[in-house]
This record gives sequence, C-alpha cells and structure tokens, in this order.
Amino acid sequence: MRIFVKIGIVFLVLALSFGIALAQFAKTEDAIEYRKSVMQVIKKHFGSMASVVKGETPYDQAAFLEDAKVVAMLSKLPWEASMVPGSNEGQTTLNEKALKDKEGFMAVAKRFQNHSSELAAAAESGDMGKIKKQFGATAQTCGSCHKPYRK
Amino acid sequence: MRIFVKIGIVFLVLALSFGIALAQFAKTEDAIEYRKSVMQVIKKHFGSMASVVKGETPYDQAAFLEDAKVVAMLSKLPWEASMVPGSNEGQTTLNEKALKDKEGFMAVAKRFQNHSSELAAAAESGDMGKIKKQFGATAQTCGSCHKPYRK
Repeated sequence: MRIFVKIGIVFLVLALSFGIALAQFAKTEDAIEYRKSVMQVIKKHFGSMASVVKGETPYDQAAFLEDAKVVAMLSKLPWEASMVPGSNEGQTTLNEKALKDKEGFMAVAKRFQNHSSELAAAAESGDMGKIKKQFGATAQTCGSCHKPYRK
Repeated sequence: MRIFVKIGIVFLVLALSFGIALAQFAKTEDAIEYRKSVMQVIKKHFGSMASVVKGETPYDQAAFLEDAKVVAMLSKLPWEASMVPGSNEGQTTLNEKALKDKEGFMAVAKRFQNHSSELAAAAESGDMGKIKKQFGATAQTCGSCHKPYRK
C-alpha cells in the first residue's frame, strides 16, 4: 500500500513541476527563446570576467562585481524553462537526457548557481586570489552541465 | 577659440564612449544579439509582473520581488550595446535615430532604469497599491523609448 502512496506523490510532484514549467510559457518555442536569451547574457558577462582573469582586460573591481552579480542572478533563471516537455526539439541544443534526468540536471544547475553566488562574494572582496580560484570552480560547473546535457 | 575646445571635448567623449561600446563586442551582430537577449529576458519577467498586476496570476510576494529584481538589474545593461555604430542594421528593430540622438536615448533609458529600481523597492514593501502605481510608471517608460527609437 505504502509504495502506491509514494508513487502517487512522485507523480503529483512531477505533474505539478511540469505544470508550473509549462504554465510560464505559452509555447515550447517561448521557453527555448527565453533560456537561450538568459544563456547569451550569462555568456557575455562570464566572458568579460574570463578576459580579466586571463589578464587580457585590466581589472576594475566595480565592473567585475557587476558582471559577477549579473551572472549570479541569471544563474537561477533558465532551469524550469529547460524542463518544458518537447523543448529539446527545434532551435535548441538541449539534449533529451536533461528532460529524462531532471534530478541530475537540476543538481548540476544548482551547483552552478551556488558557485556563481560564491563568485559574486569573491568579487565583492576584491581579492584576486579568491576571485581566480572561484572563477575556475564556476567555469567547471558550465562544462559539467554542457557535456552530458547538450547535443 | 573656446568653441573649438568645446567641440574637441564633445568629439573626444563621443569617440571614447563609442570606443568602449565597440570594444565590448567583436562584431556588430554580437551587440545586437546581446541587447535582444537582455530585452527578451526583461519581457518575460515584466510580463509575469503584468499578469499579476492585471489579476490574471495570483500575487506571490517572493516571486514578484524576484521578477522586479531581475528587471531592475537587466534595465542597466543593453544601452551601450545599442550605441555600436552600424548596429541599427541587420536583425534589429533599433531605429537609426537612437544612434544619432545618444543623449535623448540615454535619458529615456535612464528613466526606465530609475523606475525599475523603484518598482523593485515597491515589490520589497509588498504594498499592492504602491506596486501597481510604480508598475504603471515603469511600463510607460517602455513606450517612451520604443516609440521614438524603434523601427
């Protein structure tokens, strides 16, 4: 009996979370466009920080902190939009595996969020040693999601 | 003589600001893609707030505040990318007038930024009267930029 209750709860949670993801977007293309836009903006500001870390651009604490804050805020946004059923088809590089392995996908997404927040904290301190270390850790989380979940 | 100095300073400021805008983007298409992405994300979160203000979605203070904070942060971002010479051509709705009237364009952009910050403050208070009033004021600034500066 208890096993049926558990299965029931799992289905209910899945249905609700997919429902929420769907409700936010009228069409799957809207979800795709939204998450791609978020990723584009992240890419730009992450790239600006990369350029400073690599010594290609002079370090400006205020500008670097702004970049880090933008990434930290945006790092929270594109995940539910990635769970919209069918949104792995069309103008997207999202791998079907992400939809089939929501738990695993959300775990790496969460890791990126946490590291982005820590990067913003390091940027606040202005300590280049801390910044470089935390930038590297955050950059690694990009790859740990792109490898398994991108086409 | 003084008029030449003044003209010289104006040219220097223009050259520097265009230089900065250009330096951030390797190609004009990158500037277009970046600002369009920022606008897409703003549109989504502004739309979520609009839906609450119109009573179509139930009010959730935390979710509304998050939307307002995202808009307030993004409201600072796409303006320099809009000043990249030649970026009024191609896959964009930016009117050439924006590039010719940088001062006017930046003034309305600044108004949108200020109102977005005030909207985030209203959202923090949770006072629906304040929120509705400030949402309306912010929405007006969208139009006051789109009308003159969009194709």
